[in-house]
Amino acid sequence: MAEQPVLDTYDIVIIGAGPVGLLLSTCLARWGYKIKHIDNRPEPTKTGRADGIQPRSLDLLRNMGLKPAIMAHEPAKVYEVAFWDPSAKAKGITRTGTWASCPSFIDARYPFTTLLHQGLIERVFISDLEKNGVNIQRPWTIKGFRSDEKKDPEYPVEVDLEHVDGGAKETVRAKYLFSGEGSRSFVREQLKIGIKHKDPIAHVWGVMDGVVKTDFPDIKMKCTIHSEYGSIMVIPRENNLVRLYIQIASSTDPDWNPRKTATEEEVQNSAKRILQPYSIEWERVEWYSVYPIGQGIADKYTLDHRVFMGGDACHTHSPKAGQGMNTAFLDALNLAWKIHHVEAGFADRSLLHSYETERKLIAENLLNFDAKYAALFSQKAPAAKDIAAATETERGAEKKPAGEEENQFIKTFKESCEFTSGYGVAYNPNSLNWSPSHPAQSSIINPKGNKNRTGRILINSNVTRVVDANVVHLEQEIPLNGSFRIYVYAGKPSVTSQALQDFAHNLNKESSFFTSYLRPDINSVSHHEKHNPHSYFFTFCTIFASKRSDIEISRDVPQVLARYRDHIYADDIWDHRVPDATAASHAKMGLDQERGGVIVVRPDGYVGIVVSLVEGSATVAALNSYFGAFSSKSFGEPRAQL
Amino acid sequence: MAEQPVLDTYDIVIIGAGPVGLLLSTCLARWGYKIKHIDNRPEPTKTGRADGIQPRSLDLLRNMGLKPAIMAHEPAKVYEVAFWDPSAKAKGITRTGTWASCPSFIDARYPFTTLLHQGLIERVFISDLEKNGVNIQRPWTIKGFRSDEKKDPEYPVEVDLEHVDGGAKETVRAKYLFSGEGSRSFVREQLKIGIKHKDPIAHVWGVMDGVVKTDFPDIKMKCTIHSEYGSIMVIPRENNLVRLYIQIASSTDPDWNPRKTATEEEVQNSAKRILQPYSIEWERVEWYSVYPIGQGIADKYTLDHRVFMGGDACHTHSPKAGQGMNTAFLDALNLAWKIHHVEAGFADRSLLHSYETERKLIAENLLNFDAKYAALFSQKAPAAKDIAAATETERGAEKKPAGEEENQFIKTFKESCEFTSGYGVAYNPNSLNWSPSHPAQSSIINPKGNKNRTGRILINSNVTRVVDANVVHLEQEIPLNGSFRIYVYAGKPSVTSQALQDFAHNLNKESSFFTSYLRPDINSVSHHEKHNPHSYFFTFCTIFASKRSDIEISRDVPQVLARYRDHIYADDIWDHRVPDATAASHAKMGLDQERGGVIVVRPDGYVGIVVSLVEGSATVAALNSYFGAFSSKSFGEPRAQL
Repeated sequence: MAEQPVLDTYDIVIIGAGPVGLLLSTCLARWGYKIKHIDNRPEPTKTGRADGIQPRSLDLLRNMGLKPAIMAHEPAKVYEVAFWDPSAKAKGITRTGTWASCPSFIDARYPFTTLLHQGLIERVFISDLEKNGVNIQRPWTIKGFRSDEKKDPEYPVEVDLEHVDGGAKETVRAKYLFSGEGSRSFVREQLKIGIKHKDPIAHVWGVMDGVVKTDFPDIKMKCTIHSEYGSIMVIPRENNLVRLYIQIASSTDPDWNPRKTATEEEVQNSAKRILQPYSIEWERVEWYSVYPIGQGIADKYTLDHRVFMGGDACHTHSPKAGQGMNTAFLDALNLAWKIHHVEAGFADRSLLHSYETERKLIAENLLNFDAKYAALFSQKAPAAKDIAAATETERGAEKKPAGEEENQFIKTFKESCEFTSGYGVAYNPNSLNWSPSHPAQSSIINPKGNKNRTGRILINSNVTRVVDANVVHLEQEIPLNGSFRIYVYAGKPSVTSQALQDFAHNLNKESSFFTSYLRPDINSVSHHEKHNPHSYFFTFCTIFASKRSDIEISRDVPQVLARYRDHIYADDIWDHRVPDATAASHAKMGLDQERGGVIVVRPDGYVGIVVSLVEGSATVAALNSYFGAFSSKSFGEPRAQL
Repeated sequence: MAEQPVLDTYDIVIIGAGPVGLLLSTCLARWGYKIKHIDNRPEPTKTGRADGIQPRSLDLLRNMGLKPAIMAHEPAKVYEVAFWDPSAKAKGITRTGTWASCPSFIDARYPFTTLLHQGLIERVFISDLEKNGVNIQRPWTIKGFRSDEKKDPEYPVEVDLEHVDGGAKETVRAKYLFSGEGSRSFVREQLKIGIKHKDPIAHVWGVMDGVVKTDFPDIKMKCTIHSEYGSIMVIPRENNLVRLYIQIASSTDPDWNPRKTATEEEVQNSAKRILQPYSIEWERVEWYSVYPIGQGIADKYTLDHRVFMGGDACHTHSPKAGQGMNTAFLDALNLAWKIHHVEAGFADRSLLHSYETERKLIAENLLNFDAKYAALFSQKAPAAKDIAAATETERGAEKKPAGEEENQFIKTFKESCEFTSGYGVAYNPNSLNWSPSHPAQSSIINPKGNKNRTGRILINSNVTRVVDANVVHLEQEIPLNGSFRIYVYAGKPSVTSQALQDFAHNLNKESSFFTSYLRPDINSVSHHEKHNPHSYFFTFCTIFASKRSDIEISRDVPQVLARYRDHIYADDIWDHRVPDATAASHAKMGLDQERGGVIVVRPDGYVGIVVSLVEGSATVAALNSYFGAFSSKSFGEPRAQL
């Protein structure tokens, strides 16, 4: 190593400044990591590309504080999807139905898809990165890399970078290398990682963004249109823009040619025929492109847990369900906090293994879904009663007769809504997502009635913050700070007083998860630190089943939890989904409204474990075992005593 | 006039870039007027001054598209007010109760007061002005003005301006001059307009913004604290800032001296004594000031309807209720659209007379309220049951036994909440605000059940926009575009089909209010124009008591209304305030859910008139008479035939 003292070192080198690279970079930059981020384009995306932000992704952007900057561009919001088919009665197409894109059976804060030009979304991240001192180096590309932990255990990855015009060159060392290069990934090719094509059918798509003048009534809705002249998909956009997707060729065509193309004018003429009896004229075309797409998934997301890939480098699929950017975001989020916990010394390095297992499953689900979704759309229009049944809300919905099965259409529809909204992402059991086979074993884990499912995001709820009486969205109260989120539902103070004291007492014991990762600078932390006064490993929230005015923090909250004084809440806001509950947030979580419970949420928002809040040491002991399963230390009493 | 060809001309010269001047300038700049705007400070407010945005003002800022920029600063939000008094049992103060600052009996979108440094708010306006080509000229001041319609009927006002260092001078001509100079208004003095002091009691206030370390539990709430050592008011702010108001002297003191002052340290020591048994230490003081305040109101807001004043130039009062900036905003809003309608040729010049009559009444109410509010706070702590009764919501509230009167406390409390929220502003009947003595006379005006009160803002409601299925806040759908807002509640299409056709037919008749003010460029208006395709005088919205999916614009909506295709709505969103209504927006307005009705809202958001939607010509005839009462033309059939 002494021979190479001149190489700059970074925590991570990130290749590609699309959604996956930018989200990863933004998280790690905020959490204090040193980043080299390059992109081979001279500037951010100018036109076209992905543009759909699903409801769950909007939650995530809000949690990062980026939602206002996104919404400032006044994106289009898609609440419903309309279906158009050849009319039986007249010439041309007719609307056969509309569906909510995120029906109310999904408890979403933002029950719509947000549509905005990818370049504008990229710029929101780039401007945040600049605040944290990271500037994307453009137009630069990767020319080679080597990873060898034996040679340099601290910075095992050596990366060769080059200006795209071949002039400047640079070799740097890093702890990690990440490829967010898109479907043609140099890193993936170098690693000789194959792509598996689940569905052998490939397509050529034409996509056109423009401003149109039309009397087609659903031009501001997402539409799937089938006609005797072909099919088209309509996606509204900001600033009166509309995107049209037209399938130009399919590998099922007799004359299939993956290089088949069509001119702008041909696509417009095709759209005019398909939209009959309505007229359409283009005032302006902003972007037009033809590209072949095959569904594919990378065999591996990493080889050595030092060089990782995410986003389109790992999975490609049709643009129809608008999942590309959202899946990329969640790849990055999943990896970001795991790298952070390993590098901060909180987690065992094996935590990184769960990136591929968790995210590859989601990509596989996405590809399976893509096929199902296509089939759902191509079958005959569903009956109105099925749509009504599929989109019904809890309130006012007719009770289903006992034993009556949902039909296949409704089942698929509901699944597809969950999937496209992003609320359907579910990670399998592992050391992070508790299941009966998890090392943490205790009768108080997963209490009866619990409605949060491990591996899924926390259920939304409204509560009142005690210190300032603000009504807030509880699931958004902790920003994306890389910490585990521990929600102590404290039920009624008169009932849980002893349990809370015991909880605090056991937290403070030597070698608990709490005392094991205290900040080294804990004695000089500002009085105003809201989220991480004790440790970057966790943030606590305490929620009482009381009215705000009945809670006195100095009297009701043990000191260790009271230190999070901006995270103490009254569960006193009525919710139409649990109209009879006196403590709606407790009720939505499926926790006892008197006795409470503890919910641990991973830094990325997915539920890890739910435990009863009981007197004695069992609650903290269960958390110690849970965290001990993937942490760099083991906590508490020997496990045999649990 | 020929002797002065060199003078630049403006539509308006605005003196002062505080809230009142900025809001006026922003509106008029957007609507295309040529503005000279000066301020005698070298830059916007750096620290201190007003900082409370009441719920109704936040609605207004949102309607102007400025709310996101305000909220980007993460202001504090005050949901509750806490009261602290000397403890009977122990040494020091104790909390005697808390009240919602905007209880749920007020149907507010934002039931809180937003607190943000005035300079940040000013910059939001300034940046919007710059987009419209207006730059505040600083530091310049006004040295003289003359108004003479005989000399120059078009630009009657001549204004002498000067750089504050006396170097540069400029004389310009304008149609209007506006003083938003604050309480020491040069313009007011020149016009020799007196100030009437309703309450002879004056006060000296100390105000301190800073970051504190304290164990006082309500430091993030608005608090009124009485102690044996004096009184203090706590107002939370953005970025952990807190503002303290301390009364330093009162003209009721035996040793009253309006020049009495106190040092920063004296005020801090005083606060420490008052807050016992809690401790408080300052980490940083951002601003400290001592100033005398007397309640006062200008005798006139204008002399000749060319030179106007608004904001603190017209009314001064204690800062306790946080009304200064909000009242200033509404002064400006009221004047802005009236100048616009006169200059656009829509309204008779006499419309400008209503500025003083409407706004002076509000200032008088404010001063009366100020006294009542002070009394409310100084009396003994209210009983818990009275607070509960005063803040109860519709849902779940105990029914009051018939005949039981609300007690005085509850009555005053409710009034004060309406007032401080801004939802209590009510203009008296005049040509704009219909009453039985209005020239428009028809049995279909003010239909039975109507819940909107003329001179008050439109009731809030949620509806679904038909073209894109977005769920929207109806009262926000028309931006602050200077146009009258005509809400056609169209009930059930099967019932109102003929009435709607007749409405459209009569609109299109020669010399209706509709045909009288068509845009001269109507034939070249863009297909994408949403709000003013026909005229800047009005914007139409049409709301059906149907599900969105049952509405087909091309079939159900007459062409003239269908042109506003982005303003066609389905009244199909459930509302907890009218849980049994099938068409909640119709129900909240008190309109028949089958037959609908028409609500005309002034450009500033206040209801002008409510009329039934009937078959035949009566509905349009009633609107013709209403608009004819203040317009530059008279409309429709001779009035005798109504």
